[in-house]
Amino acid sequence: MADSTDTKSSNQMWGGRFASGPDAIMEEINASIGFDKKLFAQDIRGSIAHATMLAHQGIISADDKVKIVEGLNTILSEIESGSFEFSRKLEDIHMNVEARLATLIGPAAGRLHTARSRNDQVALDFRLWVKEELQKTEQLLTNLIAAFLDRAEEHAETVMPGFTHLQTAQPVTFGHHCMAYVEMFGRDRSRVRHAIEHLDESPIGAAALAGTGYPIDRHMTAKALGFREPTRNSIDTVSDRDFAIEFLSIAAIAGMHLSRLAEEIVIWSTPQFGFVRLSDAFSTGSSIMPQKKNPDAAELVRAKTGRINGSLIALLTIMKGLPLAYSKDMQEDKEQVFDAAESLELAVSAMTGMVRDMAVNSARMKAAAGSGYSTATDLADWLVREAGLPFRDAHHVTGRAVALAESKGCDLAELSLADLQAINAGITDKVYDVLTVEASVASRKSFGGTAPSEVRKQIAYWRARN
Amino acid sequence: MADSTDTKSSNQMWGGRFASGPDAIMEEINASIGFDKKLFAQDIRGSIAHATMLAHQGIISADDKVKIVEGLNTILSEIESGSFEFSRKLEDIHMNVEARLATLIGPAAGRLHTARSRNDQVALDFRLWVKEELQKTEQLLTNLIAAFLDRAEEHAETVMPGFTHLQTAQPVTFGHHCMAYVEMFGRDRSRVRHAIEHLDESPIGAAALAGTGYPIDRHMTAKALGFREPTRNSIDTVSDRDFAIEFLSIAAIAGMHLSRLAEEIVIWSTPQFGFVRLSDAFSTGSSIMPQKKNPDAAELVRAKTGRINGSLIALLTIMKGLPLAYSKDMQEDKEQVFDAAESLELAVSAMTGMVRDMAVNSARMKAAAGSGYSTATDLADWLVREAGLPFRDAHHVTGRAVALAESKGCDLAELSLADLQAINAGITDKVYDVLTVEASVASRKSFGGTAPSEVRKQIAYWRARN
Amino acid sequence: MADSTDTKSSNQMWGGRFASGPDAIMEEINASIGFDKKLFAQDIRGSIAHATMLAHQGIISADDKVKIVEGLNTILSEIESGSFEFSRKLEDIHMNVEARLATLIGPAAGRLHTARSRNDQVALDFRLWVKEELQKTEQLLTNLIAAFLDRAEEHAETVMPGFTHLQTAQPVTFGHHCMAYVEMFGRDRSRVRHAIEHLDESPIGAAALAGTGYPIDRHMTAKALGFREPTRNSIDTVSDRDFAIEFLSIAAIAGMHLSRLAEEIVIWSTPQFGFVRLSDAFSTGSSIMPQKKNPDAAELVRAKTGRINGSLIALLTIMKGLPLAYSKDMQEDKEQVFDAAESLELAVSAMTGMVRDMAVNSARMKAAAGSGYSTATDLADWLVREAGLPFRDAHHVTGRAVALAESKGCDLAELSLADLQAINAGITDKVYDVLTVEASVASRKSFGGTAPSEVRKQIAYWRARN
Amino acid sequence: MADSTDTKSSNQMWGGRFASGPDAIMEEINASIGFDKKLFAQDIRGSIAHATMLAHQGIISADDKVKIVEGLNTILSEIESGSFEFSRKLEDIHMNVEARLATLIGPAAGRLHTARSRNDQVALDFRLWVKEELQKTEQLLTNLIAAFLDRAEEHAETVMPGFTHLQTAQPVTFGHHCMAYVEMFGRDRSRVRHAIEHLDESPIGAAALAGTGYPIDRHMTAKALGFREPTRNSIDTVSDRDFAIEFLSIAAIAGMHLSRLAEEIVIWSTPQFGFVRLSDAFSTGSSIMPQKKNPDAAELVRAKTGRINGSLIALLTIMKGLPLAYSKDMQEDKEQVFDAAESLELAVSAMTGMVRDMAVNSARMKAAAGSGYSTATDLADWLVREAGLPFRDAHHVTGRAVALAESKGCDLAELSLADLQAINAGITDKVYDVLTVEASVASRKSFGGTAPSEVRKQIAYWRARN
Repeated sequence: MADSTDTKSSNQMWGGRFASGPDAIMEEINASIGFDKKLFAQDIRGSIAHATMLAHQGIISADDKVKIVEGLNTILSEIESGSFEFSRKLEDIHMNVEARLATLIGPAAGRLHTARSRNDQVALDFRLWVKEELQKTEQLLTNLIAAFLDRAEEHAETVMPGFTHLQTAQPVTFGHHCMAYVEMFGRDRSRVRHAIEHLDESPIGAAALAGTGYPIDRHMTAKALGFREPTRNSIDTVSDRDFAIEFLSIAAIAGMHLSRLAEEIVIWSTPQFGFVRLSDAFSTGSSIMPQKKNPDAAELVRAKTGRINGSLIALLTIMKGLPLAYSKDMQEDKEQVFDAAESLELAVSAMTGMVRDMAVNSARMKAAAGSGYSTATDLADWLVREAGLPFRDAHHVTGRAVALAESKGCDLAELSLADLQAINAGITDKVYDVLTVEASVASRKSFGGTAPSEVRKQIAYWRARN
Repeated sequence: MADSTDTKSSNQMWGGRFASGPDAIMEEINASIGFDKKLFAQDIRGSIAHATMLAHQGIISADDKVKIVEGLNTILSEIESGSFEFSRKLEDIHMNVEARLATLIGPAAGRLHTARSRNDQVALDFRLWVKEELQKTEQLLTNLIAAFLDRAEEHAETVMPGFTHLQTAQPVTFGHHCMAYVEMFGRDRSRVRHAIEHLDESPIGAAALAGTGYPIDRHMTAKALGFREPTRNSIDTVSDRDFAIEFLSIAAIAGMHLSRLAEEIVIWSTPQFGFVRLSDAFSTGSSIMPQKKNPDAAELVRAKTGRINGSLIALLTIMKGLPLAYSKDMQEDKEQVFDAAESLELAVSAMTGMVRDMAVNSARMKAAAGSGYSTATDLADWLVREAGLPFRDAHHVTGRAVALAESKGCDLAELSLADLQAINAGITDKVYDVLTVEASVASRKSFGGTAPSEVRKQIAYWRARN
Repeated sequence: MADSTDTKSSNQMWGGRFASGPDAIMEEINASIGFDKKLFAQDIRGSIAHATMLAHQGIISADDKVKIVEGLNTILSEIESGSFEFSRKLEDIHMNVEARLATLIGPAAGRLHTARSRNDQVALDFRLWVKEELQKTEQLLTNLIAAFLDRAEEHAETVMPGFTHLQTAQPVTFGHHCMAYVEMFGRDRSRVRHAIEHLDESPIGAAALAGTGYPIDRHMTAKALGFREPTRNSIDTVSDRDFAIEFLSIAAIAGMHLSRLAEEIVIWSTPQFGFVRLSDAFSTGSSIMPQKKNPDAAELVRAKTGRINGSLIALLTIMKGLPLAYSKDMQEDKEQVFDAAESLELAVSAMTGMVRDMAVNSARMKAAAGSGYSTATDLADWLVREAGLPFRDAHHVTGRAVALAESKGCDLAELSLADLQAINAGITDKVYDVLTVEASVASRKSFGGTAPSEVRKQIAYWRARN
Repeated sequence: MADSTDTKSSNQMWGGRFASGPDAIMEEINASIGFDKKLFAQDIRGSIAHATMLAHQGIISADDKVKIVEGLNTILSEIESGSFEFSRKLEDIHMNVEARLATLIGPAAGRLHTARSRNDQVALDFRLWVKEELQKTEQLLTNLIAAFLDRAEEHAETVMPGFTHLQTAQPVTFGHHCMAYVEMFGRDRSRVRHAIEHLDESPIGAAALAGTGYPIDRHMTAKALGFREPTRNSIDTVSDRDFAIEFLSIAAIAGMHLSRLAEEIVIWSTPQFGFVRLSDAFSTGSSIMPQKKNPDAAELVRAKTGRINGSLIALLTIMKGLPLAYSKDMQEDKEQVFDAAESLELAVSAMTGMVRDMAVNSARMKAAAGSGYSTATDLADWLVREAGLPFRDAHHVTGRAVALAESKGCDLAELSLADLQAINAGITDKVYDVLTVEASVASRKSFGGTAPSEVRKQIAYWRARN
């Protein structure tokens, strides 16, 4: 936050990277251009809006405004084409652009800085960036949801084991399982939309921290930059990084969802499970074992959750206990958000690809669903509902039937009626209607249940809002 | 999640706490009644809604329903009066209530468990609890905002230094500074409100994970329990703890805001600053140094942010990579949320008290605001605006004026007109209108700026929505 | 840190838990007796050592010392027998003990506080507690290592798949796999031992922060309390919580190791893997599905890693940016450490039990090891070593052999010599010596390799140092 | 971990960065060359040691060894001179070096890979890197300690307020305060040294995970690479990242210490405190306010603690629940460590510079030490020790003396003997010996206390071991 820095070198021994002494250390720790150049488009857009407003309010001349806007557009082209030379001596993106503008248009460049400061400028640039990233995230989540809806539709009747504790509990459909992820990523998207709503206020015009005496129009710049309204307190405006932390919290929850899916893909890809097979694009093989496929992409997605959690905790810690208003600590905000954003984009995109491409082995899923007496609760429920047994007695009878099947090495549905009636005389051949996995699944028609008819209703619900 | 557990003891040496072997270890690690008894009211409310729905749908008899509801109300009274005996052998709140209900009303108790499971039951209880906690948090934040609005109104014209880097930058008013916190806690409250919207779906009826074959009405229970609608996917319903993590993220951001305020109170309470003095209620003293006051409450509030961050990272880590649906890992969710909720309630309440009670030393604030040439930017702006100097020249002139004042050991406003004109001939006596801290503050009338008139507008805005 | 607190109540509305106003809030946020009473034994031990030294140095009388020591021993008995009444008004364990001592022995009690302060007293108590906890952890890790050594010995020749990416890579032995955990928990134990070395300095005598003018002998108290030496800087002594954070870091790494083991147990307990079966003591079942076993204990151990990470990050955050010396923030240190210590003790003990008790299904392991062409790299290595093929050619030949076996639906070892020679003429019947999983395993005799002979050497190495 | 990857592109819409579909996503998420090229020197050193051992054991020919070593040295020069072209298609540093080696020396390059795998290779490279970084950290901490020892010596008698709760408690010397940091960074250095001891085992030869059938000599490579011994378990060797996490834990604690120092510098640099003034090299100024100095470097150091905490939690989370042995998740380890290492190096170096360069305002420190009745406890102690008052009475008398001085607007030392005797008749003029801050400080001669004589003893102790 300095216009100029007069440093003196020292004679001490520094050694290594910092052999040239304090100046080298300070430049290294202080300069942000290495990462904040990512904000160039936002910086220029903000400056154009500011200059336009200054001219409209008569604070600068129309002529100066034209020069400034043309100069900034030239710089934008230079950066986009790669011909712009960034200088670390000029510390950050704002100073790099400003210095170049002065070269291009002369004294008018200085007047762009009227009624603003680096404090509100960086708050604006970063907020614009995060807003756009949230919009991009919204779209990527929509793509991922779409991939799941397609797979859910395709597999609305594919039976698989429903797990609790990674043990087979009750049969469900793979479509139903896919729709669980639709709910998760749908919640992530709701959070993204509300986060946009929370940050949709324009910081520019807060100046250093106290506002300004110039007759600026903050509603005009807010509108020009696509914000709902200007922020309401200039001190808060330059002190606030909630929008960055909220982005990171949302990314962390989405990352957690992705890690659960990644874990399932890793486990399901083992020879022991064999439920799914990733496409070649998202796995690596071995020249020596052509049948081998490592689920690298899923593992990397799983790991990203750690990385995003790290960024979240980093920024929460950085902001802890900072007195108002701006402190230089806040310069550490951007790398955390940039890194998490890149991780999230990559993880959502990779997962969308994996979900779309992976081969589902319905036969293995169905075989697994049928093992482990997964319809035992269906039998118990039938005994309560149809044979009128008290709950506890129904459980007891079911336990005996499972034990019998286990001793015979067969499924519940393979026990004869005589066998079943020997355990409880009230059992009729109607019981076989619930003992197969297909029957079990079809019967669970409660709202949100696993019956194919219910799953299709939910697919339709989400199609309508995706 | 077991109906019965058949454990065998071992002959190995365990020593210490677990001398009795595996059973003691398992009971200790597995039982949740030590903390989940906090959910008793939600558990009973949920069961009453479920039983009422079961009877309405003809799944249980009206007679059973009456017995169940009466039994549950009896248990509620027993717990509230402290006469209920919790048993660790019965593991959790659900089993404790269920066992007692069986004692009170006999076999009908068993039928309460029709068409539900401990998986959807705990999801319901915990979600109800979090929803109520969010509502409580909303109210506590409203109280804190109200405290700040009162202080802001009282001090709309009290001048203090506006800090950047904890160095005096420009004068602001204490009212304006208070309103920065109103913005922060206002954002926290918006997040709370949206979090309620995100979680406002009823889990009950998802059963173990697949839904149920009983003809239940999940919309009826959702309505009875005050939820907007039932959840749409039974697997997700028992796997989801987003509502808990979202609560923790919001609490972490609010905790960070509180830590910044706490830090300011600690610094401002030093003899060196002397801006505020906490009331006796929120500080501790010393019998030996009667003038001494330690800002203990502020320090403890500051520390709570670490605690809440810890809970957030704990639950994010716990949920990382869990395959669907329910896993026992998820039992670790509640203590983190309970602890963070208690910390946040306490911190917001303590801070509300500190803000209301603390004595503000306006004289010390004003004196500090006036030192450090805090109106130097006002002079530079005046030179640009009134004397028509280019930005860079105005800065140069200002630098010389400050250097002169420094050499004379006086303020900018105390330099004579002759002194100023010797630096730049274009300066007139109008310049003194901006050189005092009061004039500086009054001039910053941009939207959200520190001018008392602007601060009062924002107070009115917030009064209308608090 | 106050001898007395003069609070005034306010007339504001507080509502809820804090209806009685600021005093209730302050008591709730300020009092630590709810958790620091856990330090009672350390507090009394420290006070006895301090009083003994004071008398030896002639600072208090021998008579006072006798009274103090008797009084403290009485209090110790009272607390241990449960007859001591803790008071929240007295804030913490130190004041509770001190007040009771005054009742028991009168004015001499006051003299115990000569040349010390609550700041060095709490530093002492907590450091003693952490040291003992580290010693306990060392023993628990030794027990866990012992359990693994026994299983490793039993299964030094049991072949299982060695996994990378959870895909079968090469055969290993279960004994070898167990020994990997011995290395991990051995490293944890090394860290524990060094942590004890790092903290082994006595804080008592640092007083409030500056040391004292009384002629105390800090080496005497250090020795009496079992510390290597006294701390060397009184300001650091009351400001330092490194010992607590170092405990948490070590616990976090150990917790991570435990989570990996827990994950393996969960996956290996699925019907799909079926490698192990937990004992009844460490799993839960279902009355309805008697064959079902949920690995609850393993899941809970896995979850504890999140909890410990949370405590670590909490305390690191709490200590961030605290000016020296003591601040009240530091009162939040103990609950984090107590909670993590309890989690770690429980998790290590539960895991020791699971490892000792679990049934290993060697047949399932061997079958899995043989599938997936896990000896393909053995074939390639044989071609390089024995047939003199270049590395890349050897890979190519191996790839063709695997493809052929795959097309025939057989193992590599089941291909005929003619088949193999058709691919590469240099192959002889010696090749079958490396194609079985047993041969593969036996061949890997490099130091630390999976050959049973190597595994037994490492078991002997660890037996000697456990 | 793939020798070749056969990918198929898809026709789906990917948009944005990944317009070219799955292949682009996979390359982006999978390639590590962007960061692991940092390991080039370690990779080449490890390969040279491996080739030398292979030749010594007769596994490869002496001729091949010579070619390999020459080729690797050529590559080392190419990378160091910047002429090496890294390829993202070749994924990582190992493949980039390997491919270049094949170009340079032909088929012999393939034989370098005998008896090793990318799994033990990356474990070796990374462990070597972390070991060197720990050695570098040890040296940087030594430099920082040296800076503090110099300032401590210079200011062994400079009196300043000793703070608790940031309130003046008792006078101490600035030298004593500096020595508190020597203790902290000394503990950090002990942890660094033990961490080196913990990781000092050579991974190479563990191969993919099971060891190898080649007659390698792992003790030879261990010795050649400067390790104490080879690792003892090949599965653990490729699964272990403890050394990375231990580095991060140590960095996090050191970062916390640095943040406390940074916070003190920020507070002490305010006009209100004015205890220190940073050199121009480590602060930024303003052209408009020439007297202004922002402590930017201190703020950035303070922020780094958040960043390092983030990296620690990231890697702990990444490793949570990973089954043995290698999983691709572990590829995410390096960026966290690289980033934290850079942050720590920079923060320690910057702080060393700040400590060496900063101007200490002894007059401001002394004035602050004398205010706030900081010798009140000295008076109370004197009353107990010299006038024989009971502790509680001494406190009461002191409280009255402070109140009297406060009402007179003077210091304790400025009260007349008559005034003091009016409060307690036993007071003599000897009391003035303890009422000045110099006397107070000089009297605290307990081991580790603030008396200049004690501080000098500790300086000597540390000089001897630095």
